[in-house]
Amino acid sequence: MTRKVAIIGVGHVGATVAHNLILNGRVDDLTLIDINEDKVKADELDFRDAMANLDYHTKLHVNDYSQLKDCEVIISAIGDIEIQKIKLDRFAEVAFTSTQVKIVAQQIKDSGFNGVLIDISNPCDIQTMIYQKITGLPATQVIGTGTLLDSARMQRAVGEALNIDPRGVHGYNLGEHGNSQFTAWSTVNVLGQPIEELAADNDDIDLDAIDHEARIGGYHVMLGKHYTNYAIAAATTRLINAVLSDANSQLPVSNYRPEFDCYLSYPAIVGRRGVVQPVDLPLTEEEQTKLAQSAAFIKGRYDAIMRGDLATASASSN
Amino acid sequence: MTRKVAIIGVGHVGATVAHNLILNGRVDDLTLIDINEDKVKADELDFRDAMANLDYHTKLHVNDYSQLKDCEVIISAIGDIEIQKIKLDRFAEVAFTSTQVKIVAQQIKDSGFNGVLIDISNPCDIQTMIYQKITGLPATQVIGTGTLLDSARMQRAVGEALNIDPRGVHGYNLGEHGNSQFTAWSTVNVLGQPIEELAADNDDIDLDAIDHEARIGGYHVMLGKHYTNYAIAAATTRLINAVLSDANSQLPVSNYRPEFDCYLSYPAIVGRRGVVQPVDLPLTEEEQTKLAQSAAFIKGRYDAIMRGDLATASASSN
Amino acid sequence: MTRKVAIIGVGHVGATVAHNLILNGRVDDLTLIDINEDKVKADELDFRDAMANLDYHTKLHVNDYSQLKDCEVIISAIGDIEIQKIKLDRFAEVAFTSTQVKIVAQQIKDSGFNGVLIDISNPCDIQTMIYQKITGLPATQVIGTGTLLDSARMQRAVGEALNIDPRGVHGYNLGEHGNSQFTAWSTVNVLGQPIEELAADNDDIDLDAIDHEARIGGYHVMLGKHYTNYAIAAATTRLINAVLSDANSQLPVSNYRPEFDCYLSYPAIVGRRGVVQPVDLPLTEEEQTKLAQSAAFIKGRYDAIMRGDLATASASSN
Amino acid sequence: MTRKVAIIGVGHVGATVAHNLILNGRVDDLTLIDINEDKVKADELDFRDAMANLDYHTKLHVNDYSQLKDCEVIISAIGDIEIQKIKLDRFAEVAFTSTQVKIVAQQIKDSGFNGVLIDISNPCDIQTMIYQKITGLPATQVIGTGTLLDSARMQRAVGEALNIDPRGVHGYNLGEHGNSQFTAWSTVNVLGQPIEELAADNDDIDLDAIDHEARIGGYHVMLGKHYTNYAIAAATTRLINAVLSDANSQLPVSNYRPEFDCYLSYPAIVGRRGVVQPVDLPLTEEEQTKLAQSAAFIKGRYDAIMRGDLATASASSN
Repeated sequence: MTRKVAIIGVGHVGATVAHNLILNGRVDDLTLIDINEDKVKADELDFRDAMANLDYHTKLHVNDYSQLKDCEVIISAIGDIEIQKIKLDRFAEVAFTSTQVKIVAQQIKDSGFNGVLIDISNPCDIQTMIYQKITGLPATQVIGTGTLLDSARMQRAVGEALNIDPRGVHGYNLGEHGNSQFTAWSTVNVLGQPIEELAADNDDIDLDAIDHEARIGGYHVMLGKHYTNYAIAAATTRLINAVLSDANSQLPVSNYRPEFDCYLSYPAIVGRRGVVQPVDLPLTEEEQTKLAQSAAFIKGRYDAIMRGDLATASASSN
Repeated sequence: MTRKVAIIGVGHVGATVAHNLILNGRVDDLTLIDINEDKVKADELDFRDAMANLDYHTKLHVNDYSQLKDCEVIISAIGDIEIQKIKLDRFAEVAFTSTQVKIVAQQIKDSGFNGVLIDISNPCDIQTMIYQKITGLPATQVIGTGTLLDSARMQRAVGEALNIDPRGVHGYNLGEHGNSQFTAWSTVNVLGQPIEELAADNDDIDLDAIDHEARIGGYHVMLGKHYTNYAIAAATTRLINAVLSDANSQLPVSNYRPEFDCYLSYPAIVGRRGVVQPVDLPLTEEEQTKLAQSAAFIKGRYDAIMRGDLATASASSN
Repeated sequence: MTRKVAIIGVGHVGATVAHNLILNGRVDDLTLIDINEDKVKADELDFRDAMANLDYHTKLHVNDYSQLKDCEVIISAIGDIEIQKIKLDRFAEVAFTSTQVKIVAQQIKDSGFNGVLIDISNPCDIQTMIYQKITGLPATQVIGTGTLLDSARMQRAVGEALNIDPRGVHGYNLGEHGNSQFTAWSTVNVLGQPIEELAADNDDIDLDAIDHEARIGGYHVMLGKHYTNYAIAAATTRLINAVLSDANSQLPVSNYRPEFDCYLSYPAIVGRRGVVQPVDLPLTEEEQTKLAQSAAFIKGRYDAIMRGDLATASASSN
Repeated sequence: MTRKVAIIGVGHVGATVAHNLILNGRVDDLTLIDINEDKVKADELDFRDAMANLDYHTKLHVNDYSQLKDCEVIISAIGDIEIQKIKLDRFAEVAFTSTQVKIVAQQIKDSGFNGVLIDISNPCDIQTMIYQKITGLPATQVIGTGTLLDSARMQRAVGEALNIDPRGVHGYNLGEHGNSQFTAWSTVNVLGQPIEELAADNDDIDLDAIDHEARIGGYHVMLGKHYTNYAIAAATTRLINAVLSDANSQLPVSNYRPEFDCYLSYPAIVGRRGVVQPVDLPLTEEEQTKLAQSAAFIKGRYDAIMRGDLATASASSN
């Protein structure tokens, strides 16, 4: 009977998501879990020291798995950015992170949790699949943030090209939250028309360059500060809010698509029970092909992990 | 005619202050300045990538000193946490940071800025004095965050001892934002009475332990995660909001007190023009002595820096 | 597992409380109940038409008593401002409103509700007592907004006299949310000292005038616009937030005080289960006498209502 | 150097806009102007009494025309809802309101104001034209809220039909904020596709019924509570935020379209200087015809007012 959320993995991303929730009083009970107890207790204390100067109160719980049972939302933000930092490839950390994910997923299952599990851990689509498989939660209740972030990057890049608010750019990046993703330009509308029509008349709009920018935007941030946090936290917070308020928002998140028998990013209607309604986009044939290729890539890597073939699973995807 | 703020020094603290302002649309134009251009551009891009998933729009400017002239508020968050990390002493970085502060202060002066300058850089009282001296701004327009943070730590510690909201703990830590500070218990009211009366009847309230906790709280956070950001950012954001909205809020910040001819933390009424009214607390004789000692310490270190005696200036204060 | 709140009585006050909650996404499920179905459905539609331009989603339910069972908070804002408008006395409507309150209280009881019931309906202390008696809820779970509003008016008046933020004025109006209330000046601290000491040295501070202003402030608003809504809604929203977030905030609300065997406004620590801890103020003898008189007045009126003596119950209190 | 906004006309709508801005600290200086001084002073006092329980401070100024000069935004919310209440036609009040608008427009011009003027007063397109003509401000700096509200109603109706968040419904109502408006279905996208394609396959989506609902939604609210305020205030607040933050948001507002030589609602890019970029929609021929008809209606009424033919100007538009 309160807004109860847990964040597992309190590195740069997990801590920033926690900060967003605390700053605006979005949740009542917030559980922070991390294997680095010194770090998570330091963040907890830092948040408590902030409280007197914030507008809202939030109850914090640290490394207390007993809180998970009746959470509405659990966020997985585990990972080892140090590994990604060296290779600039989300697959560099797949062996490390998937091992952690399997352990955490079992702990979540054992807790009796029956809410919505949101995965940020990378490679996002694959870790989300592992979470779903091990927890045994209905696929609709396990979601990856996926290309909600990459879509925001595409919106940013289009907005900058046209000097307009990115919120006025409607459309999606689809597929893997990784290198096989693509901007589905047929879905992108801006200034009241399909961007492909607009681009045909406007030399300032280079769709290939924007698509590239959206896909690799994260690496620019990685190169400059060795982690990314604000944009992924904003995307995650929006997704959490949609679940808590049962908003039935249409968001491009990693969700199970039966036609591919795997998770990948594709818009879905998200409410209190997770994915409450699928969406079907009238994609072009070329986009359908790209999506199938991205799905095949995801499945291949997922299968490699599940059969223990880590060499294949963690091969560079660049 | 807009809310225009600049942050100079975009490390953990500066970036978190920026994040707070962006997340809630508190400012219209936000300028980020840092000598590490890769880092500040990475943060800028990360913020831009967040925009499509945030409620409000903020215009970002990077390393553009021409924006400073008509800012309402400039925040200094420069420093080198790596140095503090090793020694856990705010004076460890005084030589490095004061050199930077002198350069930045001159740039601020040259810009023609005439708003409110808020210093977070440590040692806070000393850097604030340097800023005031070099910029030549009226002392009322130069403020350090000072013990606004330490007071919040004291409020947190008292709140935890009594199981109440820290916002219901009224009172102040005074003096240096450093080891010579102290909780002025005569100013602390809680549960409708002076805490000293309450503590006399309640063995759960150990004022010395709380005072110690408030003073060294930051080191616990430092030890756990090697920097502090959320609590100092919350304090700074509250101070910025008081200035922008001309709230005339009573806040324990580092401000110039003529009786000591130096900056130290003491409550002041803060509005659009900075310190708009002094406050005079009926301190006990013991508290007055402690305050004078803290002032003497600050002045001694400030004078050492100004005469170039860095050995004295940066001696450990533990 | 969501933030679920109901508002019973959707006149000016109830609708403004609903608006506050909706505007900032403070609740997930909001039930609006009013006997004037046309009015409440019009408000519902107006809120729904606002949703596309608001930041957060809120689910609305109208006149659905089945929602009450698992609400965390129910607000009673029933009343007939038309009656008060003519007489400018909160007791003018006591007969009408207490009849309604008895019916609603029984409906709340029948629903199985076991959260926190907050009464705004006037005369506040008396209706709160009726709610507690009929619902049979623990006294700690039934709270009136009481002098949380009058204290804010006192804070405003003191703040204006000293040109400071009212949030920096700490202290309370106590007793009846009506004419027998008083500002307990011994509790009021401002600018770091007891206001009575400050007033002794400062001719600008006329405590009697401020006390009068706080007590009759509402009538100025009533005379000008024939209802009050923003200040009472702000007070109520703050109280709701304290309950939802389990903040353990110290707030001057109408709560059961055993020494008087009645409800009256006196600070209490408010959290998720309502009043979670009493507060004891070191009042002066004169203040204790005034408080006892206010309690006697409340009890007298309450007893008159309960024995059906409406002439006594509704006599002018001016 | 602050966010400075004025609201002229503080009835239900003007007061609710003020409340939205105050509740979230969106502005620093807010001027409220109304010929009913008792009413506007009552609202001011009510807002001041709320301040101690709100998160942010706002400076209020009442009936002070000298504040207008350096406002960034002025809102006109003048009107006489009592007249509309009887006739349920926005043209019922045209004679009364346009007389007031002419006076106010001259006062704004005399103040030296050079920001963005936003008109809510009805009939919206016509009053906006009068404001632009009399103030002599560039057409880009004078905007009517227009069908930003009606579009939200359409979004709500579509959202309800499909059980999705109205924010996920993209598209516009165009033309007059009145009976000659229409939903431009060719602009409406939902669930990733044009709604007309979706409706062809889905009997639950009756576009004519939704179009009707959007156009007359306001009358349902009017009938139930005799005014509308929350939805129009939400639309206005969104527009104000776009201007203050220079967001370059695409919003369907009443703006000057040279091809019709009049104001009517059509999407425009809105930033700090008002309409900063026009938008051109690829409307169907039928939609272009409807838009031209709506423009002709607006121009006819405007011309009638300007030549003093009030009988024609105020004829029922139902």
